[in-house]
Amino acid sequence: MSESNPIGVFDSGLGGLTVVKALREKLPNESIVYFGDTARVPYGNKSPELIQKYSKQIVDFLLEHHVKMIVIACNTATALALPALQIQLTIPVIGVVKPGVQAALKATVNKHIGVIGTISTIGSDVYKKEVNLDDKSIEVTSLPCPLFVPLAEEGMLESPATKLIAEKYLKPINDAKVDTLILGCTHYPLLKSVIQSVVLPSTKLVDSAEAVAAATAVLLEQNKLSSQTGGKGKLKLYVSDFPARFKSVAERFLGEKIKNVTKVQLD
Amino acid sequence: MSESNPIGVFDSGLGGLTVVKALREKLPNESIVYFGDTARVPYGNKSPELIQKYSKQIVDFLLEHHVKMIVIACNTATALALPALQIQLTIPVIGVVKPGVQAALKATVNKHIGVIGTISTIGSDVYKKEVNLDDKSIEVTSLPCPLFVPLAEEGMLESPATKLIAEKYLKPINDAKVDTLILGCTHYPLLKSVIQSVVLPSTKLVDSAEAVAAATAVLLEQNKLSSQTGGKGKLKLYVSDFPARFKSVAERFLGEKIKNVTKVQLD
Repeated sequence: MSESNPIGVFDSGLGGLTVVKALREKLPNESIVYFGDTARVPYGNKSPELIQKYSKQIVDFLLEHHVKMIVIACNTATALALPALQIQLTIPVIGVVKPGVQAALKATVNKHIGVIGTISTIGSDVYKKEVNLDDKSIEVTSLPCPLFVPLAEEGMLESPATKLIAEKYLKPINDAKVDTLILGCTHYPLLKSVIQSVVLPSTKLVDSAEAVAAATAVLLEQNKLSSQTGGKGKLKLYVSDFPARFKSVAERFLGEKIKNVTKVQLD
Repeated sequence: MSESNPIGVFDSGLGGLTVVKALREKLPNESIVYFGDTARVPYGNKSPELIQKYSKQIVDFLLEHHVKMIVIACNTATALALPALQIQLTIPVIGVVKPGVQAALKATVNKHIGVIGTISTIGSDVYKKEVNLDDKSIEVTSLPCPLFVPLAEEGMLESPATKLIAEKYLKPINDAKVDTLILGCTHYPLLKSVIQSVVLPSTKLVDSAEAVAAATAVLLEQNKLSSQTGGKGKLKLYVSDFPARFKSVAERFLGEKIKNVTKVQLD
């Protein structure tokens, strides 16, 4: 495997583009191949067997593009498919959960961490389990914030309605006096500023997209796979369907103009 | 076919339960078998072939329950599968679009109708086409309101945030001076009161769930299929998956307590 090969990133839809954005900021000379499974989104309400099947199909597609490592930029696929993929593959694979948890464990002083995410992620308790795997004494307060995904997709990132909804959702987080809050959904970094404005001023936000980018940099370094070229890395985007509003939503998530997107059918 | 047989109703998910609610108010002595395809929701981003295949599978399931007619309580399936099903089946079939349009055509005086719905429904122009099929001179202003579905599912039916979002979405409807507004999504009847509070006071709302219930009553009468029993009709609910929050969301939509729900796998 050559260090000039791209990094493969996948998600059930477009949320993983916040991870791509963080990767391009942290590792500008790395090339990236992204696959968004927009035809089969959302993964949150599907069976574990199906998520594992879909993840394997996507990984096979990414391997055809000679990726040197894989980033699962999807909470559901991380929870359900990461362990099996780490066993099956010879290249490094990371998910979104562990890097966010590690960053939160470093940040917390009062040993009380908050996690917000989709109903499916919070229901799976994947973040709480990962935190307590490392340190049983840490208290975790988890909360689903179902409207944050559609608000982010609508681009209502700082509107008064979004602030009202954030205040309502995050009151239990403030009441619980967590000192660190993990944004446990790849859509949430877009709402970081409104979230920061309603939590207690002392609360540190952990952006899991940034945490994954930092962990990716370490993993590439450890495996001697960091790109040695000086130029800007290429970005190739693949989706399984073009939903309505695709371009505007994707550009908002990615933070840059999208030139080429290719639709591929996996099944 | 006996008139004591149930009515079959289906939707991609739970939104169609607002149609069930309207049917039970309008036709309390009719029994109903409902199928919500919660494992494969949403239909809006899937191909026409797939929607037709899914609809056929569901109709076959409902026919096994000896339904005397079928109500497609889903805008996407109505647009894509109703014509074929009306040819294939020997029992009456109706969708959600035509009854809403007929009610709006009766209500409008200034010949300017508004339609709100999901991105997929509005993008398909199915309501506008149906209106202009009947009367080319009618002006139609269509608008997607993507946050209304998650707000209804969150139960934020009258919150200040919902009102702010409704004001923002419906401003073009008020500016266009429509005198009649079709709620072109089975989730929207839950938000009727907040929608009524932000549109011009003279705007008449057409609740497509109520319009479908009225059209069902007429169709049963015409086909001599109206139930002749005096008691309260039975309600059987089937879903393809139990999503998180299923019970609370379903009871909010249905407006009554849910006793038995059965999960069935169709494919």
